[in-house]
Amino acid sequence: MAEPTPSPTPKIIKNDPWYGSYAARAETMRASEIRALFAVASRPEVVSLAGGMPYLDYMPFKEIAELIDKMMVEKGDIAWQYGLAQGDPHLREDVLQIMRLENITDVQPDDVVITNGSQNALDLITRIMCDPGDVVLAEAPNYVGALGVFQSFQVDVVNVLLDKDGLIPESFEEAVIEQRKLGKKVKFLYTVPNFHNPAGVTMSVERRPKILQIAQKYHVLIIEDNPYGLLGFDGQTYPALRSMDDENVVYLSSFSKIIAPGMRIAWMVAPPGIRQKLVLANEASVLCPPNMSQFTITTYLDNFDWRQQINQYRGMYRDRCNAMDAALREYLPYCTWNKPKGGFYIWLKIPQGLDSRAMLPRAVTAKVAYVAGTGFYMNGEGRDHMRLSFCYPTPERIHEGIRRLSTVIDNELETTQLFGTSGVPDADPRDAEHPGPQVQ
Amino acid sequence: MAEPTPSPTPKIIKNDPWYGSYAARAETMRASEIRALFAVASRPEVVSLAGGMPYLDYMPFKEIAELIDKMMVEKGDIAWQYGLAQGDPHLREDVLQIMRLENITDVQPDDVVITNGSQNALDLITRIMCDPGDVVLAEAPNYVGALGVFQSFQVDVVNVLLDKDGLIPESFEEAVIEQRKLGKKVKFLYTVPNFHNPAGVTMSVERRPKILQIAQKYHVLIIEDNPYGLLGFDGQTYPALRSMDDENVVYLSSFSKIIAPGMRIAWMVAPPGIRQKLVLANEASVLCPPNMSQFTITTYLDNFDWRQQINQYRGMYRDRCNAMDAALREYLPYCTWNKPKGGFYIWLKIPQGLDSRAMLPRAVTAKVAYVAGTGFYMNGEGRDHMRLSFCYPTPERIHEGIRRLSTVIDNELETTQLFGTSGVPDADPRDAEHPGPQVQ
Ligand SMILES: Cc1ncc(COP(=O)(O)O)c(C=O)c1O
Ligand SMILES: Cc1ncc(COP(=O)(O)O)c(C=O)c1O
Repeated sequence: MAEPTPSPTPKIIKNDPWYGSYAARAETMRASEIRALFAVASRPEVVSLAGGMPYLDYMPFKEIAELIDKMMVEKGDIAWQYGLAQGDPHLREDVLQIMRLENITDVQPDDVVITNGSQNALDLITRIMCDPGDVVLAEAPNYVGALGVFQSFQVDVVNVLLDKDGLIPESFEEAVIEQRKLGKKVKFLYTVPNFHNPAGVTMSVERRPKILQIAQKYHVLIIEDNPYGLLGFDGQTYPALRSMDDENVVYLSSFSKIIAPGMRIAWMVAPPGIRQKLVLANEASVLCPPNMSQFTITTYLDNFDWRQQINQYRGMYRDRCNAMDAALREYLPYCTWNKPKGGFYIWLKIPQGLDSRAMLPRAVTAKVAYVAGTGFYMNGEGRDHMRLSFCYPTPERIHEGIRRLSTVIDNELETTQLFGTSGVPDADPRDAEHPGPQVQ
Repeated sequence: MAEPTPSPTPKIIKNDPWYGSYAARAETMRASEIRALFAVASRPEVVSLAGGMPYLDYMPFKEIAELIDKMMVEKGDIAWQYGLAQGDPHLREDVLQIMRLENITDVQPDDVVITNGSQNALDLITRIMCDPGDVVLAEAPNYVGALGVFQSFQVDVVNVLLDKDGLIPESFEEAVIEQRKLGKKVKFLYTVPNFHNPAGVTMSVERRPKILQIAQKYHVLIIEDNPYGLLGFDGQTYPALRSMDDENVVYLSSFSKIIAPGMRIAWMVAPPGIRQKLVLANEASVLCPPNMSQFTITTYLDNFDWRQQINQYRGMYRDRCNAMDAALREYLPYCTWNKPKGGFYIWLKIPQGLDSRAMLPRAVTAKVAYVAGTGFYMNGEGRDHMRLSFCYPTPERIHEGIRRLSTVIDNELETTQLFGTSGVPDADPRDAEHPGPQVQ
């Protein structure tokens, strides 16, 4: 694998002449000290269990290259031209077969909107639904990228509880009732039902209709964010919420984890009124998604056995998850975690008294990186957890990474027993999520 | 050229169950009746003088395809991976040489942020600078895509006047003073100094320092949007505002018009404090720009004589502008226009009493399309103008298009003289700007 450039360390900007001129929504944006740490964490000698990047080395890039070559000769003039704001019709047709794998069978290409990654889909849906001060219900812990979007639109994020079977329906219902009592507008529930990032859990099949019933009863929209649904380790899939309700669910999925993120292509399915606004918002945001990326994806889907490739990914991630689980049992048996059935992440609870955020610089010094649990909450919770990604490093590296982590935690335990907890200045661990291409 | 699919006609959504649940900013978004018209306008028999799409048929797609092939074999694993939120470092280096052509010589790669087209750059800068009700000063008429962004962030757009030498400095100063008197926060001046879309004019070199002085005097930021600067018909360029002031100018440029828009890659240069927020906003909006697109652009820049290719574009657009100018003299001598010295557009003033918006359906029936002037104003002005694009059709088609347009205008004049002005229901001509790939 070629050597990518690590993230540059941000300089602290002194005497910004535009200080005081920014929008309110920009004031909470802060460059993070942790970014500097991640420039270090991306050095080859560090085992990074921090990133959410898929492992792409098994992709048949030579064959892919030839097909892109052919595509460019045949229709380079369109691949390089502006496209439709809603996305390429061919790609909108192609995603239908992918969604069928999770029981979504009633969608037409016109219901689909192609976006610049699911990140931009989250941006668009928040943009059209939420005024400042509106409430979004979301699982806690929660995907950092979604928290970043909600924050940038000045939305109040209210936590809904998760357990090993995913989002707890009663917690959802209580939150709606309570927020309404407070006079708040609850704009939607944001959920990642399958192989949750970061919690690793999956919403049980029994809970799904219950959650939909609550949404219907209280007329609350559900945003179903599903980038990992096809990455169940045993090839299992779960019926999408969207497959049981076409009125109250906006469904999001992405090519980032099942194929590759470098095209920045994802899609969403929404009821007609919402979909129409999403298309206009997409146009205001980016004019249209890149044809070059969309044509690359359709070329890939039309010519490769992508089902087989996803199967291969599943097997690879299963092996890595097993490696991490085994290493955790070996080195950190006094920590607790749910072994996930798919996806990319283990959500590790560390011994009481330890602080995952405070510990991070020491971990990086010991040549292992993770994301501190605090990054997945709005309110500073999460110091007792960390997210460990098994998607990118090989099983051997994972084993070594967990070994190194155990030395840090052991040390930390000793120090805490001697001196009590130590802390570092607050920083925003969101920046740890996608710190750019990392050497692992 | 292959046959692209025309934009689908939007259906009117009845009984949207989410009606009343949207954000305030989404309420002004409306699907336009004119979109339906443009599905018709994109038929091959219609000469479209409406789109802002570059003409790409002369691109050496075979050679380009081979180079992309090579790039994918060598570094497909990075091209398909997540990248940095600020953009690929190699590309940030590459754009420096392009900016040097307009006297910008002091920029470092770290000052540059890569965005998903300049459209997203406009979105990001508005997002970090503007609260609802803040004022943005902008030339009138103005680029429709910018108006769409300003509207979606609920900004008040205040017009600054243009003449044949571009933005009028006195008008800028007066607007600042007046808005401040009204207690308004003026967040920036948005200007397209070179080969303005839609007005076709260029800010004179004498006016540039004057405009910067006003910005400095009143501490008003300038957004310099410059996608057409290298498309001067005689190879002439003008010193960028950014080349004379690195503190008060955010500079935007794009590959869309000088190379091709299908990658959706553009860049911006901003003072450090602003740039840092732009990177965070880019991350919240899209995580990162597509590596696939960025690597395609760097591959192109590194291997082709892009200066020569831009020269070829210049010559092509000059010929088309000449063809349009000649046809206008021949068929519509009683209209008025400034012949542009570069870019894509002629801004045509039609005879008094005519209404370019009302006339459009008749024009499309006569197999010629344009964008009505009203699309370039927030306030319904512009019925006396239309924008004619000469970028995409061949000179012969342009000649035929203007001939058809003259029959429509002649007819209209006759009817008006007989019956007075006629009107159609209001529609939002912004949708006409990038209606997707069009057969011309
Ligand atoms: C739950 C979740 N949603 C959305 C995304 C964003 O994915 P994309 O690459 O499509 O923007 C991610 C990426 O990590 C994710 O984990
Ligand atoms: C003045 C102006 N700014 C920005 C843009 C957007 O360009 P991009 O394709 O880079 O989003 C355009 C495109 O027409 C334009 O004319």
